[in-house]
Amino acid sequence: MEHAKDVANGAQTPQSSGQHTSINKPQDPMDSTKFREAAHAAVDEIINYYDTLPSRRVLSSVEPGYLRSLLPSGPPEDPEPWHEIQKDIESKIMPGLTHWQSPNFMAFFPASSTYPGMLGELYSAAFTAPAFNWLCSPAITELETVVLDWLAKLLNLPDCYLSRGEGGGVIQGSASEAVVTVMVAARERYLREKSEGLEGEAREDKIAHLRGKLVALGSEQAHSSTHKAANIAGTRYRSVPVHLEDDFALTGRGLRKTIEDCKAKGQEPFYLTVSLGTTSTCAVDCFEEIAQVAKDYPSIWIHVDAAYAGAALVCGEFQHHTAHFSAFDSFDMNMHKWLLTNFDASCLYVKRRRDLTDALSITPSYLRNTFSDSGLVTDYRDWQIPLGRRFRAMKIWFVLRTYGISGLKAHIRHHIQLGDLFHGLIKSRSDLFAVLTPPAFALTVITIIPRRQRRQRSSIPADRPDPAHEAYTNDFTPDATNQHLIDANALTKEVYELVNSRGEIFLTSGVVGGVYVIRIVSANPMAEEKYVRRAFDILVKTAEEVLAGKEPVPRENGVEENPLVKMPVPRLG
Amino acid sequence: MEHAKDVANGAQTPQSSGQHTSINKPQDPMDSTKFREAAHAAVDEIINYYDTLPSRRVLSSVEPGYLRSLLPSGPPEDPEPWHEIQKDIESKIMPGLTHWQSPNFMAFFPASSTYPGMLGELYSAAFTAPAFNWLCSPAITELETVVLDWLAKLLNLPDCYLSRGEGGGVIQGSASEAVVTVMVAARERYLREKSEGLEGEAREDKIAHLRGKLVALGSEQAHSSTHKAANIAGTRYRSVPVHLEDDFALTGRGLRKTIEDCKAKGQEPFYLTVSLGTTSTCAVDCFEEIAQVAKDYPSIWIHVDAAYAGAALVCGEFQHHTAHFSAFDSFDMNMHKWLLTNFDASCLYVKRRRDLTDALSITPSYLRNTFSDSGLVTDYRDWQIPLGRRFRAMKIWFVLRTYGISGLKAHIRHHIQLGDLFHGLIKSRSDLFAVLTPPAFALTVITIIPRRQRRQRSSIPADRPDPAHEAYTNDFTPDATNQHLIDANALTKEVYELVNSRGEIFLTSGVVGGVYVIRIVSANPMAEEKYVRRAFDILVKTAEEVLAGKEPVPRENGVEENPLVKMPVPRLG
Repeated sequence: MEHAKDVANGAQTPQSSGQHTSINKPQDPMDSTKFREAAHAAVDEIINYYDTLPSRRVLSSVEPGYLRSLLPSGPPEDPEPWHEIQKDIESKIMPGLTHWQSPNFMAFFPASSTYPGMLGELYSAAFTAPAFNWLCSPAITELETVVLDWLAKLLNLPDCYLSRGEGGGVIQGSASEAVVTVMVAARERYLREKSEGLEGEAREDKIAHLRGKLVALGSEQAHSSTHKAANIAGTRYRSVPVHLEDDFALTGRGLRKTIEDCKAKGQEPFYLTVSLGTTSTCAVDCFEEIAQVAKDYPSIWIHVDAAYAGAALVCGEFQHHTAHFSAFDSFDMNMHKWLLTNFDASCLYVKRRRDLTDALSITPSYLRNTFSDSGLVTDYRDWQIPLGRRFRAMKIWFVLRTYGISGLKAHIRHHIQLGDLFHGLIKSRSDLFAVLTPPAFALTVITIIPRRQRRQRSSIPADRPDPAHEAYTNDFTPDATNQHLIDANALTKEVYELVNSRGEIFLTSGVVGGVYVIRIVSANPMAEEKYVRRAFDILVKTAEEVLAGKEPVPRENGVEENPLVKMPVPRLG
Repeated sequence: MEHAKDVANGAQTPQSSGQHTSINKPQDPMDSTKFREAAHAAVDEIINYYDTLPSRRVLSSVEPGYLRSLLPSGPPEDPEPWHEIQKDIESKIMPGLTHWQSPNFMAFFPASSTYPGMLGELYSAAFTAPAFNWLCSPAITELETVVLDWLAKLLNLPDCYLSRGEGGGVIQGSASEAVVTVMVAARERYLREKSEGLEGEAREDKIAHLRGKLVALGSEQAHSSTHKAANIAGTRYRSVPVHLEDDFALTGRGLRKTIEDCKAKGQEPFYLTVSLGTTSTCAVDCFEEIAQVAKDYPSIWIHVDAAYAGAALVCGEFQHHTAHFSAFDSFDMNMHKWLLTNFDASCLYVKRRRDLTDALSITPSYLRNTFSDSGLVTDYRDWQIPLGRRFRAMKIWFVLRTYGISGLKAHIRHHIQLGDLFHGLIKSRSDLFAVLTPPAFALTVITIIPRRQRRQRSSIPADRPDPAHEAYTNDFTPDATNQHLIDANALTKEVYELVNSRGEIFLTSGVVGGVYVIRIVSANPMAEEKYVRRAFDILVKTAEEVLAGKEPVPRENGVEENPLVKMPVPRLG
């Protein structure tokens, strides 16, 4: 439809030849001078944004579809100057942002951003290259290998995950992408092993037969990305039950039982996610027991998902968690959660990089042998789902150097202290709150105690008690006849929804083993004691308000209209 | 091992309680003031980098492993100031960069970067959120929906790809990731359709049986990512033959034959990639014929891969290519290739978003119905492989507004003109060069004509001739007895390797239908006539030098040592 007009406007390309005289380069609407000016204005705006974060409503209160009505129906016909574009950021984008860097953001897990990380993104964009192989831009590949080796040592990973042996690290976009990547590698390794010695059609038939039987495993508390990855990889998924009495950790006993159940049904478990810090309660699976079970099932790929809590491994007091990691196949942690680097920077390590390249390389093997297998060059496209990739090592390099090892440790320990402080505050009001699982990695998981129960029972242990406190555990027995739990769930949900609808702080809730809980985690770079104390005060006030049976806020005031109140329980990542 | 020391250094967290007095926030090594200063220095360095790009050697000449020896074995113990970090960029990173923004970069396809795109990355990092669902930060989701609708209209996509109906767009990291995403959706849709009416074990058995028979299709010239996606999705892959006489386009006839062959073997074709601009020669598949075939096989998902050439659709003179797209299921183009936006910004459109969410959502359906299916909110995590995602719409918004529609068109047409110019120059030396396929989307694909042939045949058509020129087509018949082709391939490879080893310009080569070719595409934002003319001069000089039988450069000069010379033919993306 545009064709006639475009041709009239000079769309026809000239009959070119060696004699053609000159082709004019279109004018650049943002040249160096304009960019310098625009960038300075952008930097000032970002600084101002961070400076004003504590006073901004942490949760956006916009209605679905708010933005379309604020924007034109298409881009402008002619260039717009930067100052016109920039002013729309504060007026149109900011109102729709949830401020993850706000000190009042205590939901999900943090997604840190810091100034050195931003500089890394700026350079990464400037040096843009879809660096799918070494040749594409050697520095992009090599810096990634170097900084991931640095990080592996910082996190006390066993040497088998370093690039100098058969393993190595690669930056992925997210922990969920990492799970898909290793699950595909696990599936292919399993099929290869089980069809060994067969050829041609017999091999194809065997593999086709096996595909329908493959089952990926994760604990009931493993992040949902393992289930999603199984859907993507085209295999079954089965979750291993976990229990409150084990603090929701996956045990060796539970794992063995599920594996045996699967085998009894003719299914083939080929993959397992274990967690260092589950999403709901930061549970740590029983790695030593699992490593024992793994000896009996060496074909099962075991992946450690340490997306959030893995950051704590920079501190010596957490490094005992890695003691059995050499028994596993892969490990992933997100620097973009708790380690001061903006999304995305998910650091995946594998023990045998050949497992990845065997599954994901489509380069004929006679080519692969020349360079890649010699270890001389790494073609990271064969370590991941996509081919192209960004220069993400730059921001990691900047962050590690800007903070230094001492700064990273201080950062983690500060949040652990804040978590302990918050837990202490919660304990001080054991009339109002119960703690479901031990506080871990700065996360506290609480329920509100129903009034009736408070009256009936003079002394509810506020912290997770020793096993003798059976009465306490019984409170959380997921049973349709457990009136305490039914009441507590309804009450906790009401308090949670009221807190979030007011938008002073942002928390997440979840249902863990049938118990409706509120999760509080204050671990982004702006976290401070005063905000943690304020969050506690808000929880106390709101719980007391709800318990007093006081109508929280008149419905006409729009609480009913707030999408948050109507939203289903948000998935935890 | 570090445990004892760390505890001694105060790692023990205090026994906290409500009475705890104060927890000190660690000092921020880069505060606002330091950030402003660092950012200004970074912006100056980036501007200087772009200003000096034409004079930098476009191809890095580092040896594999160069960087590790330049860097320490781990991050510093204590914070380093920005000026220490920054000086390592020029001295250690720059030498290892391949300069994709250099006007002498004429390899692969361009990966554009522009100043407004960089500002987008800066804000995206500042507003960091792993925006997996609407609630996470509504503006991130909503701006994405809006700008992708803008772009769909700019590209003349049929209305079925707009978000107001049943379709919509989503930003993916790369065209290869988009292929995996839609292939998984295609697989699940196919299995669902073919097991309809069955339940329980009967359904599972049917699906398990079908999985082993699924086959994904792409033409021989489709990007390798389709083959890789089939490996990831766990299905077979089969390529459809294409031929020089069709300019390597996939035809309806060829497609139908392959589908019938598969069916005859009991295989189930469920997915097809068609290309608008293949990687090797920018061929455009015969969409009208393919749409006809599709009517007979409505269960096959057809995906249009327009990763590079899709950008040209902003110009009316290319928009006839979209005439049959409503017959297909999905479309993807990379703004990060030829549309002025830094990697990553791959824009994927689907006709039925339910196809994506049915395959990729793990939210129970009773929750999905409340909001997502109402169209009130979009949870983009269910439109992609990973859960988390960056705020990539920001840079697209900035680029579209900074350039305006007129600027985007001028940008594309400038490169088309440069391509035509280059093609004209090549034609002017038909004694040296032959053109394999018609120039398309600024890409020219050439071979060097062997001396013997030049002497024997006084008049070689330099451009791709009309079908009457059988002698010409015969030159490219891939046949072990075709001495012309054997000679031309060796010669073209020699010229290619010599050009790249000298690093004045960077080109890519490839083997297309048995013919070794050099690809030249000058389409990044700095492209200009003078650089295109220089590239032509370099090709002429090098071809003449090689043809003269002159020893190109003494081996002692290190050419032998340059990894490029030893590298296998680089894969084209």
